[in-house]
Amino acid sequence: MSSNSTGKLFTVTTFGESHGPAIGCVIDGCPPGLPIDAEEFRTDLERRATGRSRHTSQRREADEVEILSGVYQGRTTGTPIALLIRNTDQRSKDYGDIADTFRPGHADYTYWQKYGIRDPRGGGRSSARETTMRVAAAVIAKKWLAERYGVRVRGYLVQLGEVTPEGFDWNAVEQNPFFWPHEAQVPALEAYMDALRKSGDSVGARVNVEADGVPPGWGEPIYGKLDGDLAAALMSINAVKGVEIGDGFDAVTQRGSQHRDEMHMDGFTSNHAGGILGGISTGQVVRASIALKPTSSILIPGHSVNLAGEPVEVVTKGRHDPCVGIRATPIAEAMMALVLMDHALRHRAQCADVGEIKPRIS
Amino acid sequence: MSSNSTGKLFTVTTFGESHGPAIGCVIDGCPPGLPIDAEEFRTDLERRATGRSRHTSQRREADEVEILSGVYQGRTTGTPIALLIRNTDQRSKDYGDIADTFRPGHADYTYWQKYGIRDPRGGGRSSARETTMRVAAAVIAKKWLAERYGVRVRGYLVQLGEVTPEGFDWNAVEQNPFFWPHEAQVPALEAYMDALRKSGDSVGARVNVEADGVPPGWGEPIYGKLDGDLAAALMSINAVKGVEIGDGFDAVTQRGSQHRDEMHMDGFTSNHAGGILGGISTGQVVRASIALKPTSSILIPGHSVNLAGEPVEVVTKGRHDPCVGIRATPIAEAMMALVLMDHALRHRAQCADVGEIKPRIS
Amino acid sequence: MSSNSTGKLFTVTTFGESHGPAIGCVIDGCPPGLPIDAEEFRTDLERRATGRSRHTSQRREADEVEILSGVYQGRTTGTPIALLIRNTDQRSKDYGDIADTFRPGHADYTYWQKYGIRDPRGGGRSSARETTMRVAAAVIAKKWLAERYGVRVRGYLVQLGEVTPEGFDWNAVEQNPFFWPHEAQVPALEAYMDALRKSGDSVGARVNVEADGVPPGWGEPIYGKLDGDLAAALMSINAVKGVEIGDGFDAVTQRGSQHRDEMHMDGFTSNHAGGILGGISTGQVVRASIALKPTSSILIPGHSVNLAGEPVEVVTKGRHDPCVGIRATPIAEAMMALVLMDHALRHRAQCADVGEIKPRIS
Amino acid sequence: MSSNSTGKLFTVTTFGESHGPAIGCVIDGCPPGLPIDAEEFRTDLERRATGRSRHTSQRREADEVEILSGVYQGRTTGTPIALLIRNTDQRSKDYGDIADTFRPGHADYTYWQKYGIRDPRGGGRSSARETTMRVAAAVIAKKWLAERYGVRVRGYLVQLGEVTPEGFDWNAVEQNPFFWPHEAQVPALEAYMDALRKSGDSVGARVNVEADGVPPGWGEPIYGKLDGDLAAALMSINAVKGVEIGDGFDAVTQRGSQHRDEMHMDGFTSNHAGGILGGISTGQVVRASIALKPTSSILIPGHSVNLAGEPVEVVTKGRHDPCVGIRATPIAEAMMALVLMDHALRHRAQCADVGEIKPRIS
Repeated sequence: MSSNSTGKLFTVTTFGESHGPAIGCVIDGCPPGLPIDAEEFRTDLERRATGRSRHTSQRREADEVEILSGVYQGRTTGTPIALLIRNTDQRSKDYGDIADTFRPGHADYTYWQKYGIRDPRGGGRSSARETTMRVAAAVIAKKWLAERYGVRVRGYLVQLGEVTPEGFDWNAVEQNPFFWPHEAQVPALEAYMDALRKSGDSVGARVNVEADGVPPGWGEPIYGKLDGDLAAALMSINAVKGVEIGDGFDAVTQRGSQHRDEMHMDGFTSNHAGGILGGISTGQVVRASIALKPTSSILIPGHSVNLAGEPVEVVTKGRHDPCVGIRATPIAEAMMALVLMDHALRHRAQCADVGEIKPRIS
Repeated sequence: MSSNSTGKLFTVTTFGESHGPAIGCVIDGCPPGLPIDAEEFRTDLERRATGRSRHTSQRREADEVEILSGVYQGRTTGTPIALLIRNTDQRSKDYGDIADTFRPGHADYTYWQKYGIRDPRGGGRSSARETTMRVAAAVIAKKWLAERYGVRVRGYLVQLGEVTPEGFDWNAVEQNPFFWPHEAQVPALEAYMDALRKSGDSVGARVNVEADGVPPGWGEPIYGKLDGDLAAALMSINAVKGVEIGDGFDAVTQRGSQHRDEMHMDGFTSNHAGGILGGISTGQVVRASIALKPTSSILIPGHSVNLAGEPVEVVTKGRHDPCVGIRATPIAEAMMALVLMDHALRHRAQCADVGEIKPRIS
Repeated sequence: MSSNSTGKLFTVTTFGESHGPAIGCVIDGCPPGLPIDAEEFRTDLERRATGRSRHTSQRREADEVEILSGVYQGRTTGTPIALLIRNTDQRSKDYGDIADTFRPGHADYTYWQKYGIRDPRGGGRSSARETTMRVAAAVIAKKWLAERYGVRVRGYLVQLGEVTPEGFDWNAVEQNPFFWPHEAQVPALEAYMDALRKSGDSVGARVNVEADGVPPGWGEPIYGKLDGDLAAALMSINAVKGVEIGDGFDAVTQRGSQHRDEMHMDGFTSNHAGGILGGISTGQVVRASIALKPTSSILIPGHSVNLAGEPVEVVTKGRHDPCVGIRATPIAEAMMALVLMDHALRHRAQCADVGEIKPRIS
Repeated sequence: MSSNSTGKLFTVTTFGESHGPAIGCVIDGCPPGLPIDAEEFRTDLERRATGRSRHTSQRREADEVEILSGVYQGRTTGTPIALLIRNTDQRSKDYGDIADTFRPGHADYTYWQKYGIRDPRGGGRSSARETTMRVAAAVIAKKWLAERYGVRVRGYLVQLGEVTPEGFDWNAVEQNPFFWPHEAQVPALEAYMDALRKSGDSVGARVNVEADGVPPGWGEPIYGKLDGDLAAALMSINAVKGVEIGDGFDAVTQRGSQHRDEMHMDGFTSNHAGGILGGISTGQVVRASIALKPTSSILIPGHSVNLAGEPVEVVTKGRHDPCVGIRATPIAEAMMALVLMDHALRHRAQCADVGEIKPRIS
């Protein structure tokens, strides 16, 4: 399968470079009859958009989505849905001076090694700009999952450098540019970011994402496990270096008597597993957490080499985020939604035949 | 693609239940001409085998591998290689009494929800028994990677519950049943395990796995990234709840100036990235780490329900490991080897045409 | 995907060489709950078996199927079903003398070119022996299609060299070793075959295969069309050189007013399309026809070359069929059944949501 | 894999409806460094374009290709290449009156059955308009195959209704709007077509396509055979009802002594096999032939039903071709080129390791 595609039955193929003419995607496998229009993409695209606050890269994009196919009279038809966004803010000049240099911590060097050629404009294909189309495609997945199964996917920033939430309120998450669950800390986070920018450095972050309403039975053993596919999808996000399902690395020091989620007639008494057992959903909330590295695009000079094989010192003059994790929440939601949508369709094909009675817990 | 298959060009399909007549796999895509014979599987299968020490489940299997196809006169022919292992130690009786019960923390419940039918014999398909064939298939991948590219894949146990190594020596790893890198701690680990068994409980663990010799350029953006595929492969191992690449979750609190790996003419000065940038190998050591949950098969009674929808108390009488992580090292190595082998072949197809000159660092 | 696998959701992977220790397959994606036992494979395997009459190769195989996994208490569980058949009649000596020779019209030369190594025993992987597992896997597909949808797949020999049927009766097809639809011609066919064997030559054949009961809506535009997948599946059968859907090549001289199948309230008035329009089933009988070349394994000497690059004269001393087409009917049925089963599952995933009302014609 | 994608390593995904805003494709897997610019698409798109002569549908499209990604400074980069063509000639009115009617012989009915919804504008996704993007994608495949391996793919019309060529000259093929290999017959063909249009009817056709320069060894047994993939690719073309490789259905009446292609030191003495044995290329010319049905879009009224379930009489007022086969030649070339390109890359991954010596014939 194309390495720029994700999903087995709900297949999303993305294309486009950061500073090329456009970015876009083709969504194949969306069931027919789902109402959708171009306006519906605006909210989530704005949530991930660069330039939403002074704390993120100052690049500004209109990010107007054009639906090129697959929708007729406001409804999906079952044919591939192509979405297109023109790049309106191309600043190739910003990057011209690093065209011959491998920026440390960037994909410049590995793309060159693989392809022997490279598009230096804003990192080209390796830019986080590509995630815009993941979010756009997930708008359709989120809507279908909600309408068809009542599934809701949502996330939040749970760590910014050393800072962690001192409280939790879902309502707070969408009220600040950090997707932070505790409103009272927002001023402190802004001060933290301002200091970080002044220092010319960047920092990592951790994002939690979860889905409620997922029915039991989604996921395919052995190599198409729901948690396996989530791990691949989340790890494919730029800058992600770690993925956890449920208690994740905390399970290392837990005892079996503590970790296992006991069952009663009215449901499970805990959810250490993160809603997945044996790669298949339990009917509980599906929980995942990701670690994002600090961006390497910083103002502090770094040692590197150039195409000529000479040592150079690199400073990233281009726009950049002191913490890419701030924008990762909608992207993590998108990847979880795409995986769930794919498995919802796979389950329709491979579950026990309709009508069979099965006990349902929780 | 089959959900019991892994790999795009080096495709391994496994089959078999824990206590069915046999387990096996079909390896498709192995290049022709690789010398291989049944004896070569013995070492790694013994490394993962249950019953290798008193610290693991007492089930004993001969695990004799029969090569059914794909090898002629001691060499691979390019056709599918089928491997078969008969299950010689089936104890269905052990599990008969839990056939109608959903063991907490097990896949019993989710398999039932998905399939409406279930094979209770030792967990059937969801048993770690399946990983035997991953290790067997990886013996071929490891050999090809070593002969063709000089790649070496190896791992070790880096945490057992709260215990961490007080020293590190690769030579120690293969000298004890825990794959522990510090020989002096082995007696303490044995005492730890004995106490754990007496308590009837279990504990989690962490395993590190790495590969050296991987050339730069392996991995495919965007959804076929080397780290993305590693995450899926490692998360697909039974009991794994978390995956890290390079510094993993430590990156959350790092600064960009600290995390980015600078480059000099004689190579990189650090490897926080774990040998992967933008989803493509850098030529450095590829490093991953996984978290394994404590097994739910313990002697301490737990609350659950049965098929009749009645509350029950479950005690796992069957053989079990107080720490499944002890046996996870060879399995983690196997999954990394399978992913690297697949990407080695994918790279041959999609890299720049042969003969093109590219700068090589480190 | 593995090139030894077929099917997207009902995935069949076969392995094994003609004269290796065994042949087998792994069937992944079979819905749970289907009753199946080893005895059920006997009929179709016998139908395709070599040695069923004096008109086919005298090789005799027990073809005893062993179910290695995926079935518990007589029902499929949803996990991969592995089937194994031991090769009990290996005569490597027969082929030893042609190990260094490329038999004209055989895959010897192309396998050598591709793999640089070759298994000469009975053609190794390229032998029609491999089709045994297609037939075995299709036994499960046929049963599920029949029980779940009332689909029936059946075929017959419609041309043997220059001979065509002078009458048609489905009941006759299973009453003679040729799968010939007109009983009265059987003695003539036997005389034809005897003469052919005496001459040491072989001849081609044509087989028709069809399925009734297929509901409308199966098949996926654009590159997963039902007819496209049937074409690939049928062309993958050894010796097949042509595939037709519906009227096939007769359509070249037809007029649109004659070819198009008109619709009335009580159904279609004709079926020139062969039950497929735009790659999707119409609800009519799905009809296909295939051309099989005359086998190249004949007693008449032929010019060729050997590994040393010297000209040689080749005579195939080994057992062979004067007309491989005689055994192709069950194999063609098998491939059509596998494709239909796969699309039945794909349709479950991708059709309009359950409950939606759609007009149904015929 | 997406059903709107074709190819395993050179993956082409198409999107767009006949009268939607645009059609396009994403090409993933093209090796880096291939020089390409938008102008290069003009020739082949013009060759397949509607409106190239009075004998084809009068719809006129500019078919201007815009390269959206994957090309930097005139060379492919290895990232996905997205091509876009705006639909400049949309005439929804033409089709408004048949929105509620199922045209006999069209995909209207089957799309409705599958999706429960339908885009009536010019047949929507089922229109031959989609093949424009196959031809565009194949321009890249043809160029790479030519530069890298010297492969040339070309085809011609070999039968128009009852008419067959009375001579053969490759030079003539591109000199007339029929791709007919004998110039002297062109006036007769034009008269034939004029009479056909007057009658308001249509007729079928046969197209031959071949590739020379294909090295031995391309193609993957058993289910990824070169001929199997060609059969699927060619059958996926609108209106195709039959596919032949080499002698195709003529092989039915041939003898083995006649069909098998003998080998001498200076090559093969014949090519009945069509350049493929055992699913792998022999190094000879790869030959295929396809049958195209007469279009169902004719002026002669036909019986059908409508969405309300009432009997209706249908007349296709829209633009149409009396023989769609006339435009099929470039499309057949495109599909053969896409399959060969995919297998060229697959061969790079899976062939014997570089440097191994193999005998080469012809």
